[in-house]
Amino acid sequence: MTFPAPLTGVVPPVCTPLTPDREVDVPSLLRLVDHLVGGGVDALFVLGSTSEVAFLTDRQRRLVVESVVGHVGGQLPVLAGAIDMATARVLDHVESVTSAGAQAVVVTAPFYTRTHPAEIARHFRLVAAGSAVPVIAYDIPMAVHTKLPADVVLELAGEGVIAGLKDSSGDLAGFREVVAGARNRSDITGFSVLTGSELIIDAALGMGADGAVPGLANVDPHGYVRLDRLCRAGDWERARAEQERLCALFGMVRVGDPARMGGGSSALGAFKAALQLRGVIDCAVTAEPQVPLSAGEVERVGKFLAAAGLL
Amino acid sequence: MTFPAPLTGVVPPVCTPLTPDREVDVPSLLRLVDHLVGGGVDALFVLGSTSEVAFLTDRQRRLVVESVVGHVGGQLPVLAGAIDMATARVLDHVESVTSAGAQAVVVTAPFYTRTHPAEIARHFRLVAAGSAVPVIAYDIPMAVHTKLPADVVLELAGEGVIAGLKDSSGDLAGFREVVAGARNRSDITGFSVLTGSELIIDAALGMGADGAVPGLANVDPHGYVRLDRLCRAGDWERARAEQERLCALFGMVRVGDPARMGGGSSALGAFKAALQLRGVIDCAVTAEPQVPLSAGEVERVGKFLAAAGLL
Amino acid sequence: MTFPAPLTGVVPPVCTPLTPDREVDVPSLLRLVDHLVGGGVDALFVLGSTSEVAFLTDRQRRLVVESVVGHVGGQLPVLAGAIDMATARVLDHVESVTSAGAQAVVVTAPFYTRTHPAEIARHFRLVAAGSAVPVIAYDIPMAVHTKLPADVVLELAGEGVIAGLKDSSGDLAGFREVVAGARNRSDITGFSVLTGSELIIDAALGMGADGAVPGLANVDPHGYVRLDRLCRAGDWERARAEQERLCALFGMVRVGDPARMGGGSSALGAFKAALQLRGVIDCAVTAEPQVPLSAGEVERVGKFLAAAGLL
Amino acid sequence: MTFPAPLTGVVPPVCTPLTPDREVDVPSLLRLVDHLVGGGVDALFVLGSTSEVAFLTDRQRRLVVESVVGHVGGQLPVLAGAIDMATARVLDHVESVTSAGAQAVVVTAPFYTRTHPAEIARHFRLVAAGSAVPVIAYDIPMAVHTKLPADVVLELAGEGVIAGLKDSSGDLAGFREVVAGARNRSDITGFSVLTGSELIIDAALGMGADGAVPGLANVDPHGYVRLDRLCRAGDWERARAEQERLCALFGMVRVGDPARMGGGSSALGAFKAALQLRGVIDCAVTAEPQVPLSAGEVERVGKFLAAAGLL
Repeated sequence: MTFPAPLTGVVPPVCTPLTPDREVDVPSLLRLVDHLVGGGVDALFVLGSTSEVAFLTDRQRRLVVESVVGHVGGQLPVLAGAIDMATARVLDHVESVTSAGAQAVVVTAPFYTRTHPAEIARHFRLVAAGSAVPVIAYDIPMAVHTKLPADVVLELAGEGVIAGLKDSSGDLAGFREVVAGARNRSDITGFSVLTGSELIIDAALGMGADGAVPGLANVDPHGYVRLDRLCRAGDWERARAEQERLCALFGMVRVGDPARMGGGSSALGAFKAALQLRGVIDCAVTAEPQVPLSAGEVERVGKFLAAAGLL
Repeated sequence: MTFPAPLTGVVPPVCTPLTPDREVDVPSLLRLVDHLVGGGVDALFVLGSTSEVAFLTDRQRRLVVESVVGHVGGQLPVLAGAIDMATARVLDHVESVTSAGAQAVVVTAPFYTRTHPAEIARHFRLVAAGSAVPVIAYDIPMAVHTKLPADVVLELAGEGVIAGLKDSSGDLAGFREVVAGARNRSDITGFSVLTGSELIIDAALGMGADGAVPGLANVDPHGYVRLDRLCRAGDWERARAEQERLCALFGMVRVGDPARMGGGSSALGAFKAALQLRGVIDCAVTAEPQVPLSAGEVERVGKFLAAAGLL
Repeated sequence: MTFPAPLTGVVPPVCTPLTPDREVDVPSLLRLVDHLVGGGVDALFVLGSTSEVAFLTDRQRRLVVESVVGHVGGQLPVLAGAIDMATARVLDHVESVTSAGAQAVVVTAPFYTRTHPAEIARHFRLVAAGSAVPVIAYDIPMAVHTKLPADVVLELAGEGVIAGLKDSSGDLAGFREVVAGARNRSDITGFSVLTGSELIIDAALGMGADGAVPGLANVDPHGYVRLDRLCRAGDWERARAEQERLCALFGMVRVGDPARMGGGSSALGAFKAALQLRGVIDCAVTAEPQVPLSAGEVERVGKFLAAAGLL
Repeated sequence: MTFPAPLTGVVPPVCTPLTPDREVDVPSLLRLVDHLVGGGVDALFVLGSTSEVAFLTDRQRRLVVESVVGHVGGQLPVLAGAIDMATARVLDHVESVTSAGAQAVVVTAPFYTRTHPAEIARHFRLVAAGSAVPVIAYDIPMAVHTKLPADVVLELAGEGVIAGLKDSSGDLAGFREVVAGARNRSDITGFSVLTGSELIIDAALGMGADGAVPGLANVDPHGYVRLDRLCRAGDWERARAEQERLCALFGMVRVGDPARMGGGSSALGAFKAALQLRGVIDCAVTAEPQVPLSAGEVERVGKFLAAAGLL
């Protein structure tokens, strides 16, 4: 299949279900894919932060891509994260996920090392030169501790180095600068601007964004697809109501006790608990060294589902 | 050989010389090892930040360990970084570097993901359980964006989970807390407290630290060994003079133009340029996407060498 | 006059024109007020960050409030910042600005000192207890290095401690949480949720915010009033076009050379240069120790004005 | 009296005892001064961070300086903080504290506003030009969120703009750069380099620092004076033992429950509780909005005192 230019709509970052001994639970993963495709999503993004990519071994990463690509059989595009510290390591992942069938790769700025904008641009140019498929830039300062500057993104878009942006920075003003630049610059065509937020998708689409990559869409794909369609129809009032329902549901990410675990353990644990409670996956375990939710915390996840009409 | 408990003295984090096309330059690497061993260092640390570990592929990492371990043939201990984002990935590196002969592994807190102290402790316990060799904790907040709390370090030391600390945090007060705890607590024995600083080794050893892991020791191993020996002899005045000579030499890390490159490109570029100018390695190139020093900047590195009596 | 509950619409943070020797230029200040009132704004906010409150002496601060309050003579509400490090000092400013006629005070979390959410809540309770006029919380992490948590804001709103929020955090998802909470909680009435952004006002109003406090409204009050009215009318398409025109105009804040000055010098210098070029104020000087724009940089400000149809 | 050039030795940042209704408790303050002078300290620093300067009103600040200066009557130098956001406001404090008798002023980089190195240098030049007494630069990134770069400090020292540095940055390598520069540069004479740390004074003096400004010296001035004298005598072994005793005592700053209060409330609450337990001041209350220690936490402060032989 040809990769859409631009890619639009709802592109969930697919959770990676694990067995109790932390192996990839392929049957659960495929049920999750069916759940998402059945919910009407437009593409799938595997090996992103919500997929616990930082925790998965190379072997597990490859298994995820092969399983998902094989299962969807070209029905809809599959993007895969090629997440590592710097250029040569990222290129190894690009090779691995594309040979496993991914139709686009999602790449962050370098991390662990200190990084300058000139080095970020050089990184993307080298990765794109070594990739057989389109490269989507992944702006996630919370993880890599650098913000992709809007002017660098637009410069790389203008050169055809990157085919899109997934923006998980939380900076909607900077995001808007990319949206407007991508629309107004004659050297940029088919560039896809996607928000990684769960909470302000109506605002992002209202500005002209192409789509969204919300982690919570694992739990409620139908809701996010509905939100996307309402925005595209210009029905902003009902879009806002749907978005607010999803914002309330998102409250589940805070069920974990901050004295006992980090925000990631809480959020990913809640998504997986919700998927288990909804009968989609078998086991809610997260990868090591994340701390599991307690029974009481899982019960609170259930209340969020009930309040959102999902149980 | 038995790994020393505690490990003491000068443990340079060995640079990884590259060929112009960014392959590991093994002959240069082995000459660098000879230069360091000839300088009197007490152990070698490969695959640390100064080794550009973030940039090397898994294949290159393995080649570095095999080459160095094979070359030193047990004359002195070789530690290897097992640097990756989270537990399962780190364990894959532990397996790789120990099967290649490393006598200890050096491991950071998780990164990319947000991390809680409880998750950091869990990470080290799991890594140690899966490692056949001692684990040294690597505190490098500049890279991983978390500080290893002194109480967590001491708790893990008391349990025998970690065998030492390499502290590159710049926080000498926190470092002192570990030094004092390791000395005073009856449940901690043979624990090695090492500073990663190039600039305050006299102070660290004066407090009771066991040794140092200075990147600049690639360039001037004799100087750092001299400094270590003066401190051990209690000759603080001459130690200070030697330390100050090395501080002046360290000024080379700032030769790179900050408008054109990041601090890492400048520092690693300077170390490698100095090694080339001293005739130790063939080529000063750094890994992608780092920005190379200009000819004028390399010339300034030469002036630092000359001022320190090294040319 | 009774202070509106909630306060809505466009509330520019009024620049403080200075004479060449850095005294408050009262005639220019009053012309600026006329320019804003003539532009249709709904209230005025003096002694905010855009007013250079951090740079003005207590005497100058008082002169600003007295001059503006006296000039507007109750035509529209005047809010004044009571910006200082901690509770007792803030209360002194509250006394000063309210005795000079301010109808509400705008107060940040404590700064300089490290601050805990419990201390922030205590601070606002004590300030409100000591204030004869409504207190608006000012969330500006860039200045005070703490984010006002949404739950603390809603708790204080529910208790009647604060009458509104001015959010300059850039975090639209957190902002939405306050907007939704203020709408849905039965214990909160008349609470005003204002965005401090210049760039995403359409999005903020689309979510249900009450108004905006955009620094750039000094330069183009008519544009921001137009934007506000279009949003209230639900004409989102034309609102977006107007917002994008203002986003392009906002580019002026980056004219200053980052090698020579900080972002504040550049932004405030650009606003004042624009006001001088538009004939509103006599002199574009900013307070010490800010670095002035060069002639070439001022020329570029003029080009932004021309492109936006303001010259 | 002539202000010493350089100022050397132990310069405690004097706590500000308060009455239960948060007024300056002058009799307790004067007893504290007697306690410090009796302990052998070399100068007094009022209105620093440990003095709760951020919390005191202008009237209270002035009362503190007048009371202390009047009481010591020229026996030893009194330095006073002139702590505010930017130049003009700082100059007002300089005028106030010098007219009240302070013999030097201590000034930070601007805060609240974003600040560029060029603006910091301009700030110090303007403050010095307006000050009748020597200006000491106060490097406290934890409070002002900017680090004073060593090269800016040395440039200002070389110009005679600043007479010294109080370094509370925790960055001993940067501190050493200033110490070495102040010793080696011919354009710098009589410049005083002081560490603000409680925990690494032996290391700082070993590098050639002139003295220390430890908050904990309020509680144990004799200990810090002993430490200073041992370092000056070159008795590094006994110095280390004394320093380690003081490090253990410093543990009191963590008695406060982090779920209930910030680090400042805990540390300042502990110092004041210790002073009350030692019979120096009447009341341990801290300024609003700091959270008070519980009875159990105060009891733990007592245990720290007992363990250090101070009860």
